[in-house]
Parts: sequence; C-alpha cells; structure tokens
Amino acid sequence: MTGERNVLWIMCDQLRFDYLGCTGHPHLETPNIDALAARGVRFERAYVQSPICGPSRMSFYTGRYVRSHGSSWNKVPLRVGEPTLGDHLAELGVRNVLVGKTHMKADLAGMARLGIDPASDLGVRIAQCGFEPFERDDGLHPDGPYDPDPPYDRWLRALGYQGDNPWEDWANSAEGPDGELLSGWLLEHADKPARVKAEHSETAYMTDRAMAFIEQAGADERPWCLHLSYIKPHWPYIAPAPYHALYDARHVLPVVRDEAERRDPHPVYARYLEERFSRAFARQGVRERVIPAYMGLIRQIDDELGRLFAFLKRRGLWERTLIVFTSDHGDYLGDHWLGEKELFHECSVRIPLIVVDPSPAADATRGSVSDRLVESIDLAPTFLEFFGGAAKPHVLEGRSLLPLLRDDGSAPARPFVVSEYDYAMRRARTDLGVPISDARLWMVFDGRWKYVHARGFRPLLFDLESDPDEFRDLGADPAFADQRARLHACLSDWALQGASRITLSDAEIARATDREVPAGILIGYWDEEEVAEARRLGSGVPL
Amino acid sequence: MTGERNVLWIMCDQLRFDYLGCTGHPHLETPNIDALAARGVRFERAYVQSPICGPSRMSFYTGRYVRSHGSSWNKVPLRVGEPTLGDHLAELGVRNVLVGKTHMKADLAGMARLGIDPASDLGVRIAQCGFEPFERDDGLHPDGPYDPDPPYDRWLRALGYQGDNPWEDWANSAEGPDGELLSGWLLEHADKPARVKAEHSETAYMTDRAMAFIEQAGADERPWCLHLSYIKPHWPYIAPAPYHALYDARHVLPVVRDEAERRDPHPVYARYLEERFSRAFARQGVRERVIPAYMGLIRQIDDELGRLFAFLKRRGLWERTLIVFTSDHGDYLGDHWLGEKELFHECSVRIPLIVVDPSPAADATRGSVSDRLVESIDLAPTFLEFFGGAAKPHVLEGRSLLPLLRDDGSAPARPFVVSEYDYAMRRARTDLGVPISDARLWMVFDGRWKYVHARGFRPLLFDLESDPDEFRDLGADPAFADQRARLHACLSDWALQGASRITLSDAEIARATDREVPAGILIGYWDEEEVAEARRLGSGVPL
Repeated sequence: MTGERNVLWIMCDQLRFDYLGCTGHPHLETPNIDALAARGVRFERAYVQSPICGPSRMSFYTGRYVRSHGSSWNKVPLRVGEPTLGDHLAELGVRNVLVGKTHMKADLAGMARLGIDPASDLGVRIAQCGFEPFERDDGLHPDGPYDPDPPYDRWLRALGYQGDNPWEDWANSAEGPDGELLSGWLLEHADKPARVKAEHSETAYMTDRAMAFIEQAGADERPWCLHLSYIKPHWPYIAPAPYHALYDARHVLPVVRDEAERRDPHPVYARYLEERFSRAFARQGVRERVIPAYMGLIRQIDDELGRLFAFLKRRGLWERTLIVFTSDHGDYLGDHWLGEKELFHECSVRIPLIVVDPSPAADATRGSVSDRLVESIDLAPTFLEFFGGAAKPHVLEGRSLLPLLRDDGSAPARPFVVSEYDYAMRRARTDLGVPISDARLWMVFDGRWKYVHARGFRPLLFDLESDPDEFRDLGADPAFADQRARLHACLSDWALQGASRITLSDAEIARATDREVPAGILIGYWDEEEVAEARRLGSGVPL
Repeated sequence: MTGERNVLWIMCDQLRFDYLGCTGHPHLETPNIDALAARGVRFERAYVQSPICGPSRMSFYTGRYVRSHGSSWNKVPLRVGEPTLGDHLAELGVRNVLVGKTHMKADLAGMARLGIDPASDLGVRIAQCGFEPFERDDGLHPDGPYDPDPPYDRWLRALGYQGDNPWEDWANSAEGPDGELLSGWLLEHADKPARVKAEHSETAYMTDRAMAFIEQAGADERPWCLHLSYIKPHWPYIAPAPYHALYDARHVLPVVRDEAERRDPHPVYARYLEERFSRAFARQGVRERVIPAYMGLIRQIDDELGRLFAFLKRRGLWERTLIVFTSDHGDYLGDHWLGEKELFHECSVRIPLIVVDPSPAADATRGSVSDRLVESIDLAPTFLEFFGGAAKPHVLEGRSLLPLLRDDGSAPARPFVVSEYDYAMRRARTDLGVPISDARLWMVFDGRWKYVHARGFRPLLFDLESDPDEFRDLGADPAFADQRARLHACLSDWALQGASRITLSDAEIARATDREVPAGILIGYWDEEEVAEARRLGSGVPL
C-alpha cells in the first residue's frame, strides 16, 4: 500500500436523484450512501450533460460537453484523439481504472486512419475512453457489442450457472413454478427473484472486482482513480433475493404526472408519450410491480458499498481516498407519463452527487448540502485538481468542485447548466419528419427556469419555483417571451463558447501574445529608424 | 500520364478579391487568371472562415468551420485526428499534394499521446494537415518555425545567392547604390527590385516545383489534387524586376476610408486603428509606395500561371483538370484606416474564387459570374464530389460547388456566410482587458447585412446595400435592433449546429434508427404476449 491518495468514483446507471435515503426517499434505506453524504458534500442540484447513458458518460469521462466531444448518442464512437480524463491523469502518473460499465464505443475507423492497433496498450486505452479496463462490462450481453462472452458470464458458469448466456438466463431471469425461465426483460416478472444468489449478481461481482483491483494496486507505486460503474438499477428490473422482496406497492411513491401535461403537448414530448416504455408505465399496476424491484436493486448497491467501504477502512484507504457517488441519469418510472429517460424533467436529467474529500481542508463542509448548480463535467477537473494537476479550461469545460468542498467562498456560482439530447436515432425523428441534423434538444436551467430549445419546434419552459413538478409547459405562453429570450441568449452564448481550441493552453496563449520587441518579422515599419525607435520603446508588433 | 482527372488548386496569400483584371481592377492586368474566369465560374461573393492565414487555411484544408477544427489562430496546432481533405481523398485513392504554404502547425503533443511518429509517412501527413508535402514552404524563413533551411534557400545558394538566409537577403531585400542591403520588411523599399531575378523568386520557384510534381506524377497511376500555394502577394512587399516597376502611384486606387469611421468607433476596431500596420498605411505616401509592389507581385503570379497553364496544355492535362484559383484572405492596404487583415470588411474577408470544371456538364456556366454566397469550406466537398466520393455532411461543413458549376438549379442558396476571429494572441485582447476565452469575433453576412458579434462589446452592423463601402457602423443604432437580433439568431443557430458528431455518418444514423422488430433487448414490455404481438406488427422499440 502506498501513501498516495486515490479516487474511488462510484457510478450507478439510471439511478434517479430522489431514490436514496439521504435525498429524501421515505422508504428506501441507503445507510452506507447516506453515511457518505454525512462525511462529504451532497450536491442537490447536479445535472448530466445528456439524459442517456452514452453521451452522458462521454461527458463524465472527458469533462466536456456533448457538443464538444461529439459522441451524441449511444452508438456514436468517441472520436480518436478526444482527450479523456485518463489522458490527463496519465500525465500525472495516475492510473485511471475501470470496473464495470462505460458504454464507450471505440472509433475503430479513426484508429485505423491513425495507424493505432486496437490491441496495443495505447489502443486499448483509446478504445476504452481513457480507462485501463481492469473489468469492462456494459451489461446487456451478449447483445452488447463489446464482448461476446464477458468474464462475468464465465464466472457464473464456473459457479454452476450454465448456458450460453448466464447473464440473461440466471442473473436477469426468474423461474416459474415448473422451473421455466421467466425473462427479466418482461415487466410482469419484476416482483420475482433473479435466479442467481445475491452474492453472484452483477452488483456483487463488480464490487468484488473493485476490491480485487485495489488489492492488486497495493503492490503498485502509482495512485489510482478507480471508476466502479454499476449497471444497476438500470433495467432489466429484476433483483436477486432477498432484494426482490424488500419493498412492495406500499413503498411506491405517488406518480408525478398531471392531465395538463397531455393537453396540447410539445410535439417531441408528445412523441415520447407514445413510446412503448411510456405507455407501459402509464398503465395501472406497472409502477407497483417495477419500482419495488428498482428500489431493491438500489438497496443492494448500498449493501455492497457497505462491504466495499469496510474493505477500504481495513486497508487504511478510507482516510486518503476521495470518494464520489453519482449516476449517469435518472429514470422517469411513469412520472410525466413517461418511462426511461432522454428528456429533461428533473427525474431524468438530475442526478445524485456526493463527494467526500478526505483532506482536512474539507472538514468544514462535511455533512453539508450544496445547492450550487453543478454538472457532470465537473468531476474530471475535480479529480485533476485533487491529484495536483494544473487546470485546463481550454480542454476541460467543467469546473473543479474542490473549491466548493474546501469552502473558501471564492468559487463563482455557475449561472446555468446545459444538457443536450440527440434524437436522430430515435423514431421520434422519423415520426416527426425531422432531418437528422435537426433532431436536437438543448436544456438551459438556471436553478429556477428550465428552457428547452427544440430545433424546428417551439421551445418548452418550466418555472420550477411556482411549478416544482414541471406540469405547466410555458413554452408557448406569450407572457413568458422575455424569459425564453433570456434563456435562449444563455444557450447561444454557451454554444459560441465551445472549447475546440484544445491544442494550446491559456498559459501558452498568454505567453504567445504579441511580444514587445521587434524580432525578425517586421510588419508596418517604414524604415530602420522606426525599427530602432520601437526597439528602444519596446513596442514592436511582430507576427 | 494517366486518364484520371486531377485538381489543381492554386492559392495566393493575402490577395484581395478586387486586385485582378477579371474582378474589376482598372490597371492590373491578369490575363491568365482572367482566362480562367472566362473558362469557368467566378464566384463574386466568396468568403473565408477567418480573415487570417492559419485558421482560414485550416478551414480550407478540413472543410470545417474554425469552431469545429479548433485551430483558431496562426500558432494553434490542428488537433491530431481532425479529418482533413487529404484523409477523404486518400479513401478514394487520390493523392493530396502540397507545393508551397499551408501555415500548418503540427499537434506534436497529440501525436505523442497517440504514439504517432512525426517522421513516419502517416506522421508527416498528419503534421502537414493531410498533404503529401512535395514542397512545403511557408516563407518567412528562417523565422518560420518549420524548416531552418528550406529547399528554396538551398536552391538559391546553388544559383550563387549566398548567405545564411538567402530568402531574406536576396529574394526579399533590395540593394542600395553602394551595394548595401535594403530590407524588404521596410515599406520604404517597396519600390525597389528584389535582389533575385524574377525566375529565381519564390513565385517562379513554386511554379517550377508544381511542374516538377506533375511530371513525376505522370509516372503514377493515381489521380492527384495539387495545392499550389503561393506566399505572394503577402508581405514582405517587394517584387523582383521587372515587376517592381510595372505600376506606380498613378495605378493606385483611391483609398476607401471615411472620417465617420473614426468617430465613436467600436472598441475592437478602435484598437486595430492603433496598430503600427494601420497607422503606417494611413500615412501619406505609404500606399503609393507599397501598392505598386503588391500589384507587381500579383502580375508576376499571373505570368507564372501562364507558364503553368501552357505546361498543362502541352501535357494534355488542361482538359481533365479541375482548376481553382483563390486566396486565403485579403489585405486592407489602408482601407478603413487599417493595414493587414483580421477584421471583416470586404477587402479582408472576401476572396477571389474561380473554379474551372473541365466536365462537359459545366459547359453551360463557362464564363459566368455567380453571386451565390460561398465559403472557403466549400472547396473540400467540391473536390470530394469531383473525385466521386460520397458527401459527408457530418464532417464536411461546406457545400460542394459542383451543382453551381453544372447548373441544374437544384442547389439551395446558402442564406448567410460565417467568419470567425480569435484575437486572444493579439494585443487588442490585453489592451482591452478581455479574458482569453472571450477574445472572439463572429461575422454573419447575408449578402446585404453584415453583423459582427464581439463578445463583451456591442456588435457591429453594416448595410452593404445602402453603404457598400462599409463606412457607417449601425451596431449601436436603435433603429436596427431588429436586424441585429435577426442576424444574431442566425449566428446562434449556426453555433448550435456544429458538426462534432464526426464518427457516424447520416446514412449510418438512418440505418441505426429504431429497428422495427423486437430483438434481444426489450424495453417496456409487460409480458410475452406483448412481445409476440409486437413481432407480428413489426413495431418493437429495441434500444
């Protein structure tokens, strides 16, 4: 074990901000996550850069907005050469290690163009968006395109869970009274236990793998940033015993929806209302069947984190590891007449975010709740600063959270957050007849007003002060034209501010700014006398 | 010689749109360029993506706006992996060859990060922004950072022009009555002949090198795109005999400036008025000394092109080569009280553009003048289409000009052009106290109204219909608030439309859009019956 400090960055998939004990859920117990919040700062207004896995994660992993990294939906490869957190940490001698899911799709065409062998160490790191993949597992196998037979499946088989796809047949299926397979893909089975024991489920396995990495890393001199990235509580909504039965319909919160939302709805929202997953969750009994499983999966993550935290304490890492707990986006679960995520209501775009900084400088903020607007891209610069790296605002578009943790009052508040969504690969685009390049949505949220610009359509607008449940879309109300114009101006400024000049730092720009004394290149000098005078006065204007 | 078709892409540096015979100059004879225009289409409203060498050229060479390629000023390396015209042509088996200047600065840090050896074939192509450098020469040596002893210098030495820097001491200096060196950097010497013979000047040398390439290429099966990129009429403003003496003060057009421009000027414009090069050109006698040399340099290019065109005809290439003549930006030459370029008046941001398409399909447009708004990024997709490549709108942000040449009336008109300028490395930034990230200007020009958004300052606005000389800045006039808002909305839409999703084509997006039949991943299905029904109806919604 070295004396270096490390980062443990825990991410859940599809975990809503409000499904934790510490974020106010009245029935869901998450004592280990709550203990993190008590030891660190919980950010109450944290937002993802895109409310779906792939682009959201690419923003987490690059510290850049979707408009900058370009991986705008799940199947869009992250362009080769796009700088990642792993690149920045490598410069500091820090390992950036993955256990679990990233949803990364490698830019194989770009790698081929640049002569990079995907099997080389470098090729692997590029293909894994900057991570050293101690364990890459995106779930959904073997349908996931990443590994036809991932280690988790092989491990299950070694434990006696046989078949081509034990992930599906055991970890994500239940069993009928006659031993028949009941698919976890089907919502009706969400109340049944998965066919694996809890300790053999994905959540437990990934926790084991995280501990295995930490043990191995103990023999190494290098500090690390470990991204422990659980696939759960993402669908299939099915939990192993006893988690499948901890909660029932009595623990399901009332649905957040209103008939007003379906009167004259925005065309894009209207199209999402028709999605199968939305219609399913709008049906009587579905939420009551699914949400207890969702809650059980979260509760299991909490238990596993308890096991992991005890391990860290035993190994003396608890006091020198920065710990982050977060999620890549939420889940509508029937709210707003929707299922899944993809749009910008709070339950979709807002995430839980807890950061525990072990440094004594952060003692003053322990257990506090911050209402600052923060974004998922803030984590990469946070880690960079934690490991002592210089800020890179020309590349990393987020802001380090450390000043908010080590509260010296100097960190300027972010005036608004932005989230983007590309629905080019969704049937909403074809159904609405939108050109591929126009199938884009942008959210600007300033802490009160939430504005959504939908290219080709009217905007949406919600006032979360008077309408915290986001039932009244003011996007077409003439009374709010000024608010819409103000927020659109914010979006416009943001769009013009893209960090594309990534090859030259601000410090280098400052150093290169017009030198004072005429050098070899002379522009606008009439004669030698002027050159000599400029040299005397130190006021030359070379190229 | 093969039967393939080729592209000869001639670019001048700092050539104004209006300094050619065919673009209306009353005294400057350019018969060879005029003959091109008579044989092709001259685009009367062509604009560069940034009115300075580096970023303008990176837009030409990538077909992408500056906000997309990120090389926003002369010293900003083009990020590794940024797709270039050379990459696109390589896919088609076409060589993309350079003779002359590109102003490319290689992203050596990015190449190191990706393990690319700058000396390898691939490394050279990346470092040369997609070109095979038959002859790379940016001029300005040895102060240019590219080659401390370029071939042109060695060639001059072999001809007897001795010294460490014959480029400067011979090609860009004159000689006094006592044999003393008179530097071509100094404007007072612009009326004197350079110390090299005309046939030994850079313009002649580069023409020779272009012919040498074409001869060598004759032995090769592959078609080529040859970028013949002259450094002239860019400063140093000094021409070899007889070109130094072809024109004199009588041939200098009246200066285009007005006292109104200096009353309450926009702060950024005001700062440029104070630049040495602006003050120099505002002085009595400077234009009369410099502009005849500028004209002589252009006339020499025309003569050299005559020589090159005769060579092409002799070799049977004239009829199967697409020929482009253009420039990377203009030169104020004292107009608007300014020197150099960098801002958005027509003489800076507008360029000459002639395209000769040898195809019979273009016969109908020969000798015509197009008033379509076109941009420098249009050339890369033009060449791609000429060589039979599929359009790549997700990467190439320009529009092929071929439909305008082979006029079938189907090409939609571009509603406005955009140009960008990053003055972070200019003293205007420090003098005005502007943060590095804010030192940006954007022009939107719709053919009549020219709007400039200057972050942190009021905008500028000109009505080129009522004020073709751009003397009256309406940027603060309340009467034009609506025009400004309209043009700012254009800019905002443009900013949101950045082509960052470069790894997936529109065709791939269309193919990946929600398949119709449920596959392994099932979202929102209650039971097997629903799956079976969806399979019957073909309406599944898999991930």
